[in-house]
Amino acid sequence: MGLNAYYVPTKIIAGESCVQNSGELIRRCGKHAIIVTGAHSARASGALGDVISVLEANAQRYIVYDKVKSNPSVACCYEGAALARSEEADFLIAIGGGSPMDAGKAIALLARQDIAEENLFGAIYSADVLPMIFVPITAGTGSEVTQYSVLTNDKARTKMSLSSPFLFPQAALLDAGYLKSLPRSTLTHTTLDALSHSMEGMLSLRAGRMTDMLARESICRICACLESIASGSLTDAQRESLLLASTLAGMVIANTGTTAVHAMGYSLTYFRRIDHGRANALLLPAFLAFVGKSQPDRIGEILACCGMQSLSQFSGVIDGLLGERETLSPEEIELFSSIAVKAGNIRNCIAVPDEAAVSALYSRSLSGR
Amino acid sequence: MGLNAYYVPTKIIAGESCVQNSGELIRRCGKHAIIVTGAHSARASGALGDVISVLEANAQRYIVYDKVKSNPSVACCYEGAALARSEEADFLIAIGGGSPMDAGKAIALLARQDIAEENLFGAIYSADVLPMIFVPITAGTGSEVTQYSVLTNDKARTKMSLSSPFLFPQAALLDAGYLKSLPRSTLTHTTLDALSHSMEGMLSLRAGRMTDMLARESICRICACLESIASGSLTDAQRESLLLASTLAGMVIANTGTTAVHAMGYSLTYFRRIDHGRANALLLPAFLAFVGKSQPDRIGEILACCGMQSLSQFSGVIDGLLGERETLSPEEIELFSSIAVKAGNIRNCIAVPDEAAVSALYSRSLSGR
Repeated sequence: MGLNAYYVPTKIIAGESCVQNSGELIRRCGKHAIIVTGAHSARASGALGDVISVLEANAQRYIVYDKVKSNPSVACCYEGAALARSEEADFLIAIGGGSPMDAGKAIALLARQDIAEENLFGAIYSADVLPMIFVPITAGTGSEVTQYSVLTNDKARTKMSLSSPFLFPQAALLDAGYLKSLPRSTLTHTTLDALSHSMEGMLSLRAGRMTDMLARESICRICACLESIASGSLTDAQRESLLLASTLAGMVIANTGTTAVHAMGYSLTYFRRIDHGRANALLLPAFLAFVGKSQPDRIGEILACCGMQSLSQFSGVIDGLLGERETLSPEEIELFSSIAVKAGNIRNCIAVPDEAAVSALYSRSLSGR
Repeated sequence: MGLNAYYVPTKIIAGESCVQNSGELIRRCGKHAIIVTGAHSARASGALGDVISVLEANAQRYIVYDKVKSNPSVACCYEGAALARSEEADFLIAIGGGSPMDAGKAIALLARQDIAEENLFGAIYSADVLPMIFVPITAGTGSEVTQYSVLTNDKARTKMSLSSPFLFPQAALLDAGYLKSLPRSTLTHTTLDALSHSMEGMLSLRAGRMTDMLARESICRICACLESIASGSLTDAQRESLLLASTLAGMVIANTGTTAVHAMGYSLTYFRRIDHGRANALLLPAFLAFVGKSQPDRIGEILACCGMQSLSQFSGVIDGLLGERETLSPEEIELFSSIAVKAGNIRNCIAVPDEAAVSALYSRSLSGR
């Protein structure tokens, strides 16, 4: 394995009541927080209440921006940033799944830097970003330890990423207790998103020994929980393991990037409103089979981490978790394939599918058979 | 496992020729480097030449401070810092084993902050420190990814640590080719230092899931190479694995700290000039046995990472690597024990030895029998 780089500067604090016990860390962030979150889960999980308790105990001011929806739009980030500016917030706490966390990064950036919307993707950002503390309440996205902010870009008709080393949060606070209130479908789809991150990380051209180590541990932890997720019998220890696994998977993709599964999944989410994690999971088995044709040893390593004997065993487990699959029309497959092959991450793989192969992967994964 | 924190903000770049390929990263550090190193190994390994080639290709100025000796003194750090100031160096590159790297951190600090010698240990440092790039040429210390600078403090008659989150290097460049020129004894002792870091990290009160994962991988990689080290038949791939393992071990102790082995080993080095890694290795088997009395499961986990069945098997392997052991007089044991029990890190263990137990550990490890 050749040259490779590994960088995750985020402080990771894990354990029961870690938000309540991080008062000093939060106190040092600033005087006035903007809390970025969605309308429901942050409250239902208890995380928002815990964060507010800490801020109040610290006599820190705060405002809550709770308008982040799934697959957050660029407009939402500008709105949140305008609020942060008008209220003079000097740090940001994001609570949520990937949507509030990804929006939080863009808000932290736009609160400090004047960037026109047409230049947002691909601009050169400076280091002047609001300090960020992230509290994940799903075990999926890994956004708490990445430099990516994935936003819906209606002009490009897909999801697109902001990426900058200045977008790593200062700290991630991992309390698996917040996962308890998740609906089973959210738990399933977010877990499979994390699994896809680790597997894609192992299939990335930028995979290295550090990321492989993290990905292996992550895959092993996730696969050890899949039966319990299916049966709805997750233990506290398993939730803790899943949350760590999703953070590890985030540390992987922070360094490897994602590959074709994410490139292809974005259209399923953008056009068909299929949940991001579910979109990846729908495509993952067929993609592993595709890579396995040229790289059977690498796929064998991944399956070994899963504790599984074959790709068909893996596909069966995923099928059991996903239930009935959505189907695509031939026109949708053609459109989605033409978009996916233009995505940067599709080339970031040890086996790159061309447009015909992408089309075949969509067909195999969402053919209605 | 309760609340725990993990933080390593250093960028890790690994692979053959990674120094030569990091020209852009080094260029962005500043205009004038101070290169901190020892008199011999940095040249012999080729690392100094590679670093200078990059600086010259970048048209960056540099000065070489190559006066760092083993177990660097506080005076050496002030001397290096004075040179950095007089030459107006604006970043620092350390090349070496632990001594140049640890001295490098103190030099980077003292080049920018006025701290009187009597206040050096335990002062509150600001973030104003020269940016640092570290190039390890042993697989031992892990200093390239820690916030510690271990210096010889003649006033306290032992080694003492500076510790600050501002002392993490910006980047660690890991090219295992530089290990090729190491004498076998240096290779052996530094490897056993790294092994001690990972094992002590697993026995620390601050051990957590992240550090355990890194420690397990590190122990497994090191133990897989011990036979080849003994027989002098290390392959390139094994050297690369050892260098990664020592960096992983550094990432462990950056978060867990060290424990009694290091606390006890410092006197062996200070008073008897026993190499730091060798000092730890002399004490490690007896310390594992001591902890095993109250925490047999944890010691069992560690042995499983080693791929070994018993502590006596582990002791035998270490004995084979160390050869004849140094011996201590009763007076030395009394003196060293009285110093070790005052060290902060001796209490950082899941089983804390009192002074009688420390004395017994010295006797068992260096009794002359």
